[in-house]
Amino acid sequence: MSSQLISLVNTDRIIGKHVFGNLYDIDPKILNDKDFLHNLVLEAVKIANMKLVEIKSWNFGGKKGGVSVIALVEESHIALHTWTEYNYATLDVYTCGENSNPQAAFEYIVSQLKPKRYQMFYADRSSE
Amino acid sequence: MSSQLISLVNTDRIIGKHVFGNLYDIDPKILNDKDFLHNLVLEAVKIANMKLVEIKSWNFGGKKGGVSVIALVEESHIALHTWTEYNYATLDVYTCGENSNPQAAFEYIVSQLKPKRYQMFYADRSSE
Repeated sequence: MSSQLISLVNTDRIIGKHVFGNLYDIDPKILNDKDFLHNLVLEAVKIANMKLVEIKSWNFGGKKGGVSVIALVEESHIALHTWTEYNYATLDVYTCGENSNPQAAFEYIVSQLKPKRYQMFYADRSSE
Repeated sequence: MSSQLISLVNTDRIIGKHVFGNLYDIDPKILNDKDFLHNLVLEAVKIANMKLVEIKSWNFGGKKGGVSVIALVEESHIALHTWTEYNYATLDVYTCGENSNPQAAFEYIVSQLKPKRYQMFYADRSSE
């Protein structure tokens, strides 16, 4: 009986896991440190058990300025955006494959940014 | 009374709007056409009323291969990932600012990819 049940599950599909959230009340010095944030995402790629394709980071000036770091991993992404004057950041860790662990990567970045409050959500990005 | 109510709303904050979804049963020829998908995202940036910072696209081979296109816009992103053999794509349109329109961009890309079925979700990425 159990083998019949297992045979009904489609294992030949794309497994996509997307953990994302909003991080409030972060030390603004951290949020403007492009190198620190770049390396944070790089480390998170390893923790999520993903293969890095390319990573890039940008600095934005002005009142609503901050840093963006985007990593393309096979075949999904990690995106961190920060707004220094608002002590605010958003984080998306979207990974593919059974063995990927986006939540561990999300929690690692949170542990380093130390927001006073944050929200975390999950979206299933798998094919049928 | 109404002016008192309005004064309680914090207008000095980051407005973040994130529309995302999974697109099923797409013509695989389209899903492997990197130039077509690149231009699709480029057009979507305009439709969302966003300012493009950088756009890049990649081809992946193999059974789980396809195309990824990521556009960094000020200060958020559009990410399209496709899997040719699974007729599958995922789309994230994350924009900032009162005047941005991520849903119009999402619907534009859907209208061009013509999935037989799709899901669309919304997440608020605004600061407090």
